[in-house]
Amino acid sequence: MADIKRVAVLGSTGSIGRQTLEVISALPHHFSVIGLAAGKNTSLLAEQISQFKPKFIYFQDKNPPTGAKCEFLSLEEMASHPEVDIVVLATSGRWGLKSTLAAVKAGKRLALANKESLVMAGEIITKEAKLNKSQILPVDSEHSAIFQCLEGEKQKAAKIILTASGGPFRGYSPTQLAKVTPEQALKHPSWQMGQKVTVDSATLMNKGLEVIEAGWLFDMPFDNIRVLVHPQSIIHSMVEFADGSVKAQMGMPDMRLPIQYALTYPERLENTTLPRLDWDNIKELNFEPPDFDSFPCLKLAIEAGKKGGTYPAALCAADETAVELFLSKRIKFTDIPRLVGQALAEHKSTTQPTPEEILAIDSQTREKVKKMVGDSL
Amino acid sequence: MADIKRVAVLGSTGSIGRQTLEVISALPHHFSVIGLAAGKNTSLLAEQISQFKPKFIYFQDKNPPTGAKCEFLSLEEMASHPEVDIVVLATSGRWGLKSTLAAVKAGKRLALANKESLVMAGEIITKEAKLNKSQILPVDSEHSAIFQCLEGEKQKAAKIILTASGGPFRGYSPTQLAKVTPEQALKHPSWQMGQKVTVDSATLMNKGLEVIEAGWLFDMPFDNIRVLVHPQSIIHSMVEFADGSVKAQMGMPDMRLPIQYALTYPERLENTTLPRLDWDNIKELNFEPPDFDSFPCLKLAIEAGKKGGTYPAALCAADETAVELFLSKRIKFTDIPRLVGQALAEHKSTTQPTPEEILAIDSQTREKVKKMVGDSL
Repeated sequence: MADIKRVAVLGSTGSIGRQTLEVISALPHHFSVIGLAAGKNTSLLAEQISQFKPKFIYFQDKNPPTGAKCEFLSLEEMASHPEVDIVVLATSGRWGLKSTLAAVKAGKRLALANKESLVMAGEIITKEAKLNKSQILPVDSEHSAIFQCLEGEKQKAAKIILTASGGPFRGYSPTQLAKVTPEQALKHPSWQMGQKVTVDSATLMNKGLEVIEAGWLFDMPFDNIRVLVHPQSIIHSMVEFADGSVKAQMGMPDMRLPIQYALTYPERLENTTLPRLDWDNIKELNFEPPDFDSFPCLKLAIEAGKKGGTYPAALCAADETAVELFLSKRIKFTDIPRLVGQALAEHKSTTQPTPEEILAIDSQTREKVKKMVGDSL
Repeated sequence: MADIKRVAVLGSTGSIGRQTLEVISALPHHFSVIGLAAGKNTSLLAEQISQFKPKFIYFQDKNPPTGAKCEFLSLEEMASHPEVDIVVLATSGRWGLKSTLAAVKAGKRLALANKESLVMAGEIITKEAKLNKSQILPVDSEHSAIFQCLEGEKQKAAKIILTASGGPFRGYSPTQLAKVTPEQALKHPSWQMGQKVTVDSATLMNKGLEVIEAGWLFDMPFDNIRVLVHPQSIIHSMVEFADGSVKAQMGMPDMRLPIQYALTYPERLENTTLPRLDWDNIKELNFEPPDFDSFPCLKLAIEAGKKGGTYPAALCAADETAVELFLSKRIKFTDIPRLVGQALAEHKSTTQPTPEEILAIDSQTREKVKKMVGDSL
């Protein structure tokens, strides 16, 4: 029997957090939950505490979860605690950055689902991870696919082919897109995810953030990362090697597989609760180039990634704010790329920013975008 | 600069042999040709000798190639010679068996394109390879794909999904198949190969032999090997792991890629002469189950593989003889599975046969099939 690894789940009440706990429940001889951190959903956190009996908890709400007798730690304390073997970082947005840094500085295995931290501070995080021998295991299905395809290879990839479902509005014209409602944007054709990432998938901003993330995770120039629309979301991404050989990783669109792989790597464990591809029912896999004109967020993100400095941080902040404004029906779907583009055009970047500077840019850009729409949200 | 590896190419004038020499020509700083062995095409062998200047040669013909001043070795001597680093075994049919055994017993790296030797004597060959630390690198695109997908994985595969183009007669009814001519059978939709393997691809016997080969190479029960028709031949095969994750290896249908990988493994080398997948032009990949009724050779092969003993040797011999009879227009296309089926039904197998017993079964079965058609070929 393998040692039982102690997992801290930061963001345990969100979509990735809940699915992480499902995976752990299915593999009780391999993993235990030592820490749970949530935002304001303290009722779900209370349920999770009673089921998993963690030693450490964190919550953002003023009211503690009922019945909790655990030790309260800050997110950074939990991410770096000596008793934690694996940190699953599943908080969304900028809140992930400091915890990510704490985990890599402590040399933890980090199962990273928070893409903003790598986008905003990829250089700092990858440098600290290397320095402290922290292993970053991507939880995004695309980056997990690339990671799996690279496993065992002696050389890095020549090219990365990042697949994209194309989102619910694939094939829409800009005119059609202007009429899109939050309700429509929250219905993703293949993946069950949180609200922010679902809207980002609809604008293709999500794919743009993933390009930046892939650049940092796999030390790959942006020009060697290609986005390919693949509506079935069966091929999760591909890697092309120096000799022209291409490897792809496939699976049902279910986040529990990349989550489990990040926990069990380099082993794989049988888990009968995970769905499997059924080749009796897969008749075709389709591919097409992304529509950069209808979905300008993709290009905005790649450009911000290429420019570097604090551009990616400004991108994340502008997008998160614009998505909030869209979800609260203050702006149109097509205003999201417009606001992000304007914020980036006006942005003044600094080179090699510190985490504090990055978070300052984040706050400033949020304010700026709110002002742009004459709003004080 | 890496050491230059010395390669002996057995079967140098055949399709795989010629493509091996193309790969070596493109990578002159990594490989040199120390040995060339051919059958009766001594004029092409003479050209190859003048281009590659091997130290050792072998030829079957009575007349030596013009201008050859090389040392003559037997196939087995060449396959096991201390100065040879890599043996490319590209002879076809039963002739590969003794050379394969000589190479694995000498602990060579063996780039194996001859599938009959593994089909006929998989147990002996894999046992000797293990014992003598000989590395068998498959040259078949399917097995190379599986090998590449398994690289770096800690566990063996849960399932192998062997893709098949379906051959030129995919969708044909038995009535249509009965009318197929050798000329039609020799036109393969995706691959450039020798005559025997091209006809085997048309009957799906080739895929059946590959199932048996995969069973031995990857220590996989036949029930965990699935054949999937994929007409574009872009996905060369796939592997499913314990957690449900599937890896696929892809590339243009060009044998030079798996040949090169077998030579350079575990490294990959850039080779601008190799074609690359162009995702601007790949719109869809299709899949369907194989048609076991119209193509009975596939089932016959898998059954022979499951039965073991000398059944696979009888299968190979019966098929090779039937294909010769078809190519010389003595029998119909649909007679190939009929004759193979009859030969297997009448076969009396022995368990754990020696190489000599296997070769004896081979000769007996050939005679038997010829008698079946009242022919003394």
